Amino acid sequence: MLFANRSVTTKAQAMVFKNYGPPAEVLKVHSFDLPSQIGSNQVQLKTLASPINPSDINQVEGVYPSYPPFNRDLGTVDEVAVGGNEGLFQVERVGTNVTNVKVGDWVLPRHTSIGSWRSAAILESTSVTPIKSNNISITQAATVGVNPCTAFIMLKDFVKLEKGDWFIQNGGNSGVSRAASQLGKLWGYNSISVVRNRPNIDELKQELKDLGATIVITEEELADRKFQKDVLFSQVKQTTGSTGQVKIALNCIGGKSATNIARVLSEGGNIITYGAMSKQPFSLPTGLFIFKDIHAHGYWLSRFGNKKPDEKKKIIEEIFDLYRTDRFKDVPVDKNIWKLSNTIEENGEIFIKAIKKAMEGGHDKQIIIFE
Amino acid sequence: MLFANRSVTTKAQAMVFKNYGPPAEVLKVHSFDLPSQIGSNQVQLKTLASPINPSDINQVEGVYPSYPPFNRDLGTVDEVAVGGNEGLFQVERVGTNVTNVKVGDWVLPRHTSIGSWRSAAILESTSVTPIKSNNISITQAATVGVNPCTAFIMLKDFVKLEKGDWFIQNGGNSGVSRAASQLGKLWGYNSISVVRNRPNIDELKQELKDLGATIVITEEELADRKFQKDVLFSQVKQTTGSTGQVKIALNCIGGKSATNIARVLSEGGNIITYGAMSKQPFSLPTGLFIFKDIHAHGYWLSRFGNKKPDEKKKIIEEIFDLYRTDRFKDVPVDKNIWKLSNTIEENGEIFIKAIKKAMEGGHDKQIIIFE
Repeated sequence: MLFANRSVTTKAQAMVFKNYGPPAEVLKVHSFDLPSQIGSNQVQLKTLASPINPSDINQVEGVYPSYPPFNRDLGTVDEVAVGGNEGLFQVERVGTNVTNVKVGDWVLPRHTSIGSWRSAAILESTSVTPIKSNNISITQAATVGVNPCTAFIMLKDFVKLEKGDWFIQNGGNSGVSRAASQLGKLWGYNSISVVRNRPNIDELKQELKDLGATIVITEEELADRKFQKDVLFSQVKQTTGSTGQVKIALNCIGGKSATNIARVLSEGGNIITYGAMSKQPFSLPTGLFIFKDIHAHGYWLSRFGNKKPDEKKKIIEEIFDLYRTDRFKDVPVDKNIWKLSNTIEENGEIFIKAIKKAMEGGHDKQIIIFE
Repeated sequence: MLFANRSVTTKAQAMVFKNYGPPAEVLKVHSFDLPSQIGSNQVQLKTLASPINPSDINQVEGVYPSYPPFNRDLGTVDEVAVGGNEGLFQVERVGTNVTNVKVGDWVLPRHTSIGSWRSAAILESTSVTPIKSNNISITQAATVGVNPCTAFIMLKDFVKLEKGDWFIQNGGNSGVSRAASQLGKLWGYNSISVVRNRPNIDELKQELKDLGATIVITEEELADRKFQKDVLFSQVKQTTGSTGQVKIALNCIGGKSATNIARVLSEGGNIITYGAMSKQPFSLPTGLFIFKDIHAHGYWLSRFGNKKPDEKKKIIEEIFDLYRTDRFKDVPVDKNIWKLSNTIEENGEIFIKAIKKAMEGGHDKQIIIFE
């Protein structure tokens, strides 16, 4: 046991839910006192920032197969879970036996379901991992663990790409896709990003190309077999000579969009599904499997991270180095300021507004900054 | 050049087509004289038997991406192709430079699109491979190259199964599935065969179990989630203890049936599509890819056989050894006798009747015996 240091936070708030359901309905702010003592293997963390990711939302809805613990640890009447899986924390105090982190360290969660939507947390020290904070912004650190890691692992862990090889991705404007385009360019891969048509489509195409995408096309263009044959494949060929192979398709949409990006794959190519924004199943003509030797896989960051936490940590350090040397841009974020001096009603309103924006789409990534 | 031996065949007939289309309409019998001389690297073959496989039918329809050569080699007015990809031939004469086969040998095609629906053929000697004919029946040899090989390769070439592991397959009464059930049992694997319901269902279930299937269920039973949970999984568990993993699903149907067998797979399992009898696409909820880590592949015997002819030959020898030692049963066949003494109209009628039966399904495998 360790007695309370001076100047550590003593009050905290968290977004909790006692039942799965629509996030705007089931999530409530809970205010609680932090204990004056923490366990010898525990750490007290102040949350600096925490994003709202689609998987966090699905987890609250109860449709995500990674279930947070429900308990009364925060002094609630009912058993509740704290929402949020990703975030950046700073260590405020450490138990007597803790050696892996020290006061002042920036730390990231080592596993999912950590409950990151709270201003402070007391956790086992082994559930977090310290990072080097020099020349890294709070939002970069708070959002590194999901989108950039997903892009990194999908491009590195399934199929060995050679310089000049291609990948295609739908949801081309998403955080993962933006990360993939940038990493692809850094590593010498070409990419085709597929986006939905919109009023400012030319502007978006240029922006994604500036970021690293080789070709940007709309879903409508992709679905047009004539465009595929006459324009897309000839661009692929022109860019790489006759050897250009489209070896990977990254799918976060499902339905027709998934089928269409799979059609662009070269013989023996792999389609990796990591999301289902259309809520449509993945469907492929059997001929693509049998005669074109297409392989379909799924990718789940939680599985990777929980199985290989050390490898994930290495990847995060590599991405931080890219940030530091200005070779990688983080996604645009919409900062929502959660002040502990606010009433719980005010903070609840700020949070619910942010999660609604995250759910309706078309906004920048929602992130909660704790002040 | 080699001059004609005595007693070799001088007349032949073949099922040819000049355009892709419905087999019963486009296939015609063509009668032709065999040349008195053959090239120094050629062999003259007498066809002993040739089956009608679904892929042969698709090839005539023009919907199969393996295209036979069209030419006037058989003295036709138009350029034609000879149908059929599998068959057993006996060598009748050999060119002066031929060393890989000798007169009297039984030989199998080394690649696809050989045109096996003809009573005799003159081919490059390298396009056939000799087999040991002792204790092998003509129909066993004529049908070994497609169904048993497909089952063998799908169970051995994708995922390493351990003794006690499971696979599930739809189309459980097909030639491939019957072969897979038997091989599975021989190798110590458990299997679930899914069949369509029918009047004599109990009889069929028993027959397939006798052959080697561990569990036989109907498509309706498979589609029933309660049955899946309460009966199927508990049977799997009882048979193998808690370690029983369903690692492979073999899919020749597509559509709902494919989705349903994929649902039975254990985490990390693989579904291999090798046919599409329902003509429905392969469709899977994205969650099975992402959260259950299911992988989907296609299998095409032609790709395997054309890439690795020597490996295929070894597999065939292994299957022949199983036949010889009575550890493996060939599929029931419906023999259609093609007599060279018949008129071409009579042989055409025999063939078209057989291919119609093959296309309507529910019959034994159609095979043409040449006399």
